[in-house]
Amino acid sequence: MSETRETDTRQRIMATAERLFRDVGYQKTTVADIARALAMSPANVYRFFHSKREINETVALRLIGEVEAAVERIINAPGSAEDRLRRIIRAVHEMNAERFVHDVKIHEMVRAALTESWPIVEGYIARMNARVAALIESGVAAGEFRAVDAATAATCVNTAVVRFTHPALLMECARLEQPTLDAMLDFLLAALRKL
Amino acid sequence: MSETRETDTRQRIMATAERLFRDVGYQKTTVADIARALAMSPANVYRFFHSKREINETVALRLIGEVEAAVERIINAPGSAEDRLRRIIRAVHEMNAERFVHDVKIHEMVRAALTESWPIVEGYIARMNARVAALIESGVAAGEFRAVDAATAATCVNTAVVRFTHPALLMECARLEQPTLDAMLDFLLAALRKL
Repeated sequence: MSETRETDTRQRIMATAERLFRDVGYQKTTVADIARALAMSPANVYRFFHSKREINETVALRLIGEVEAAVERIINAPGSAEDRLRRIIRAVHEMNAERFVHDVKIHEMVRAALTESWPIVEGYIARMNARVAALIESGVAAGEFRAVDAATAATCVNTAVVRFTHPALLMECARLEQPTLDAMLDFLLAALRKL
Repeated sequence: MSETRETDTRQRIMATAERLFRDVGYQKTTVADIARALAMSPANVYRFFHSKREINETVALRLIGEVEAAVERIINAPGSAEDRLRRIIRAVHEMNAERFVHDVKIHEMVRAALTESWPIVEGYIARMNARVAALIESGVAAGEFRAVDAATAATCVNTAVVRFTHPALLMECARLEQPTLDAMLDFLLAALRKL
């Protein structure tokens, strides 16, 4: 029961921090602000998190987790490997564009995670590469794709679409009309497809 | 002769500004600093450039011009379209990695150009897309590549390698081992090659 209460407090700190990061901004929010909003002492917040950065990491992991859950749903849905690969990239693109481009405050939060907590990003990249590799592998096994090295092909596909999935590039390249994501997916699939 | 002297002064301002941007940093260098280093008045510098940003744009155009000249040399050299396409991307990658990653001060200068002078970057992107499109077109004509739409394929190739050519991504992704540029080029060429 005490453990439940602890988990509960942790969840409340995270939720409040995320709300403040979104409303006030990551840089401007202090641990004292988070504590005050929860009517608890900063010392109590520090019992659960070592630093603001650690709170942000937890929030970032939650946001990343949403993207990964969406990707998992697509992978486990029926459809050809090509179809699911297109849908995965499109889902990541749309989720990141919606969350990280239109909202400057969330963008700042993600920016901080990218620079301060690179291992989290690296973990995400590794898991996405593994998922896409498994999907390509299944496409090869089904005779849908050429006999490529799936692990290498997956890193190539994920890296090639970075302009459509990376928060900073999504913003920077928003004004560039070409290529569209569809054109890019067509191009990359041509490298995989069995002719 | 007066015109020659004017061009000369302009060149000296640019060269001195570039040296200060490299040594002291873009943000820390003022137009007054540039004038002082040239033993002239700030007013005289302003006769040639409207702002520090305009000086940086000229420096950025010079640096971009070096990359474009290298690319042009490769395009006009003998070799298959595939071979020249690989060499172009590799040249841009190596020049940008050398200049923009290892030197924090130059990186800051480029960063400023990217955010303050987007039209310059856009011009570079458009010219690079046109060059790669012409190269792909010649590969299609030679029967080396599939009958792709060269303009679209060019934007896809240039966008797909952005992790290897974009100053900020070169730094951010330096720790990621995969994919190598070679693996990426193999993958992209597979989308173009006639089987």
